[in-house]
Amino acid sequence: MTRRTGRRPGASGTREAILDAARRRFADAGYRGATIRAIAADAEVDPALVHHYFGTKQELFAAVVEFPVSPSVVVERLEHVSRDEAGAQVMRTYLSVWDLPQYQDRMRILLHGAMADERSAQAMREFVVDVLLEPVVRQLGLSDPRLRALLVATQVIGLSFLRYLVPTEPIASMSSDDVVAAYGPTIQRYLTGDLDLPGAGS
Amino acid sequence: MTRRTGRRPGASGTREAILDAARRRFADAGYRGATIRAIAADAEVDPALVHHYFGTKQELFAAVVEFPVSPSVVVERLEHVSRDEAGAQVMRTYLSVWDLPQYQDRMRILLHGAMADERSAQAMREFVVDVLLEPVVRQLGLSDPRLRALLVATQVIGLSFLRYLVPTEPIASMSSDDVVAAYGPTIQRYLTGDLDLPGAGS
Repeated sequence: MTRRTGRRPGASGTREAILDAARRRFADAGYRGATIRAIAADAEVDPALVHHYFGTKQELFAAVVEFPVSPSVVVERLEHVSRDEAGAQVMRTYLSVWDLPQYQDRMRILLHGAMADERSAQAMREFVVDVLLEPVVRQLGLSDPRLRALLVATQVIGLSFLRYLVPTEPIASMSSDDVVAAYGPTIQRYLTGDLDLPGAGS
Repeated sequence: MTRRTGRRPGASGTREAILDAARRRFADAGYRGATIRAIAADAEVDPALVHHYFGTKQELFAAVVEFPVSPSVVVERLEHVSRDEAGAQVMRTYLSVWDLPQYQDRMRILLHGAMADERSAQAMREFVVDVLLEPVVRQLGLSDPRLRALLVATQVIGLSFLRYLVPTEPIASMSSDDVVAAYGPTIQRYLTGDLDLPGAGS
């Protein structure tokens, strides 16, 4: 027997009902597959109310994964980035979320959660790739945006692992400038380089 | 009250006692801190018996983390690698372990385990960095071998995550040649490039 969540009294009940519905939809259908309309239907509210409480689908997803910063802040920061500086700018933006003490605990918990079970890992992957990285890559207007976003994701996920989750020296204590110097060129190539993959196409 | 493990009758009992002792020592003291002598003492056997059953400390550690291939096979494969081809060779060796069906299940389980709890994550990190990568980097005779090994580790850990643990297209189905083309230059730079980190030193 499944218990109906239904609409609960009061604003915080409604907010929770929407979050619950969103959590299930994102888990079942993925970030792309889930729609505000379906989430609203599950929560038995009007779609306008979902937008009222959470803004865009991106922001709702950020609330579900409890990401500490609004994704629009992250994406806006990279909106007018020049191609030549894209790698360094992505790394600086990454560090601006991770290295602030008020965010770092939350980010660590998120990463732990993402590593511990597959559904969370998928949600986190979709959040990092679909919500944060892919829009940034598309702004650059180059070929294979999805592949480029994923190449960047593989590098920043591994860096997060050794810098924050299992802090390993000298990576864990490297200054921001050193992180940008070490990884900026990698990210730059993934974002804008001629990847020259024999079998690629997208 | 702690229960003494002690020496058990028969070869398989002894082997298990050594593995138990090694598991605890590697967890408590780390790969570098653990010695064959201490592990033998914990298991109440002669150090020669540890070598008899498991070979070197590397091989014992590989048995503890249940790595499917002998680390000496991996390191030997990279022993005479030329500097110019180091990045591509490391990637080909990485793929040779991951992409063989008989190893892949085991590797997936290892990575899942490493992600799920901190001690396993540390053991895996030490295995990848101290046992596999650092010896390879040292063979190249360049500056900052530890840092270089860690930079490589951040990239291959993140790649393993999106290629094998949460398989994500197009990364998951990329051919070996494409993986080498995409990541070889990154690994090449980490291994042999002028990293030019403002604050580095090692």
